[in-house]
Amino acid sequence: MSTVYKSVDGYPLKASCDEHLFQFRLTAWQHEPHSIEIMKGKQLMPRVVGLNEKELETLDILSMRGNKIMSDILYEGKSKIIYRGPNNESLIIRYKDTATAFNGEKKAELSGKGKLNAAISSLIYGYLAEHGVETHLIEVIDDATALVKKAEIVMIEVIVRNVAAGSFSKKYGVPEGTALKNTVIEFSLKSDELGDPMINESQITAIGLATEEELKEMTRQAFRINELLCALFAKTGIRLIDFKLEFGRYDGKLILCDEISPDSCRLWDIDTDKKLDKDRFRRDLGDVLDSYQDVLRRLQNVR
Amino acid sequence: MSTVYKSVDGYPLKASCDEHLFQFRLTAWQHEPHSIEIMKGKQLMPRVVGLNEKELETLDILSMRGNKIMSDILYEGKSKIIYRGPNNESLIIRYKDTATAFNGEKKAELSGKGKLNAAISSLIYGYLAEHGVETHLIEVIDDATALVKKAEIVMIEVIVRNVAAGSFSKKYGVPEGTALKNTVIEFSLKSDELGDPMINESQITAIGLATEEELKEMTRQAFRINELLCALFAKTGIRLIDFKLEFGRYDGKLILCDEISPDSCRLWDIDTDKKLDKDRFRRDLGDVLDSYQDVLRRLQNVR
Repeated sequence: MSTVYKSVDGYPLKASCDEHLFQFRLTAWQHEPHSIEIMKGKQLMPRVVGLNEKELETLDILSMRGNKIMSDILYEGKSKIIYRGPNNESLIIRYKDTATAFNGEKKAELSGKGKLNAAISSLIYGYLAEHGVETHLIEVIDDATALVKKAEIVMIEVIVRNVAAGSFSKKYGVPEGTALKNTVIEFSLKSDELGDPMINESQITAIGLATEEELKEMTRQAFRINELLCALFAKTGIRLIDFKLEFGRYDGKLILCDEISPDSCRLWDIDTDKKLDKDRFRRDLGDVLDSYQDVLRRLQNVR
Repeated sequence: MSTVYKSVDGYPLKASCDEHLFQFRLTAWQHEPHSIEIMKGKQLMPRVVGLNEKELETLDILSMRGNKIMSDILYEGKSKIIYRGPNNESLIIRYKDTATAFNGEKKAELSGKGKLNAAISSLIYGYLAEHGVETHLIEVIDDATALVKKAEIVMIEVIVRNVAAGSFSKKYGVPEGTALKNTVIEFSLKSDELGDPMINESQITAIGLATEEELKEMTRQAFRINELLCALFAKTGIRLIDFKLEFGRYDGKLILCDEISPDSCRLWDIDTDKKLDKDRFRRDLGDVLDSYQDVLRRLQNVR
């Protein structure tokens, strides 16, 4: 695999990428090839052999900050791209600026959304890790890119609800904002084709999507994460209405994967009930990015 | 409340019905009024005062076998009519010949279906009662009519699945007939308006439709009923694919209500996989009543 890349500043480069090891052979046209290796193992910083400063900077731009990451795209989702990682135990996630809703029917480019979600999710995952929740996050690569553990994703979305809203309200005829007698946990099958249908525990085990023990563990973690997040958001003057989690199997454990951001949560201002989440996009309420920015700012103030 | 009724054979009668006690004052036009009382308390047979044979027969036709039951209609559903019972602890259920599917969008009159379902359900409820399952059935009144305990219906349908079929197959992309790794239990909210949406246990308690203890008890009973029904149907050469139950609160307990019939079960011939249930109507497979008749005959042969 050999492609001609251009760096962000137009510096022409020839790079070849080993499919498995994320090793690059980078050739500045006016130089001999240099063998370099970046992010091998869990080492994030490049181990560089014989590159001059300009080349290093270019490499940095390309592989770390640039719009092109020199690795295979393994999967492109609605709001994220997953690249092959530096080794078999990791992946690179890049947050896109694309906003989608209603299973992709509504779509828009919101310049800067990727970076905001990446920043919010990284901040939250850092907080959760400090409180003993194991997440897939290894390290932030740049504003919109993270190196994560390559877990085998459980094909189930876990939804936690503190207050009635969204699909729950519509489906069961319960007005938005109604308090619930207990925290609700729901599962849905991760399948765009089938429209992510809700699924219950006996159905999940009957189809073999997860074991009973895994469901118990995901439920335990989801409730613990809910407690932690409610406490965190309360400090920022935000009510956590509901949110979605994904888990993955890694090293014999279930770890928190995907993201926690205004794309995957409902967040209402405690005083005004102003929605600060993806409902602003879904329901054409305007101020989408300003609200995401507000969420980030508030979180940064309490961290 | 006083209405002029005609008996099935045209004999003119004037009857008045006490709203609560199901007492009748029946007047044959050519006679003086006679005071009679039927089905008071849990007594099914009429205690008759001073009626001649013709009048008795007419009363019998009217109240027991006739197309009119002289009581208030409390509720008319898609396939059943619920009448006020002889006292506050009971109701009268009359099975209609109407077949409906897809939340009432498809509809037809199938002459004789009511009687077949009544007979099948009564036979099954008798069998379940013998095996310790408490049901609402007090006594069969006639071919299409039953006296039942007046329970407070839990607004949840309980679905048990042994094999993938129907909405389960469609929703989760699992081909019909696929064996399941475990028996599936599902709940759905009883609401025609909302389309009977699936609901899980934490959602049920969060909205207050049932308590956690009630859910445990309904689950326990549903699995027990499944065991009993699988065994019964196996003897008839029928595979019980899935079925729906309803429960009601009565005298501090949860008892089995509604019906168990080919309208509420999927029943496949063990050898040929021929469908012997409402899917024949839903999917325009023909032979609807012949299949229901077949189910009844097979059950009668093993009982």
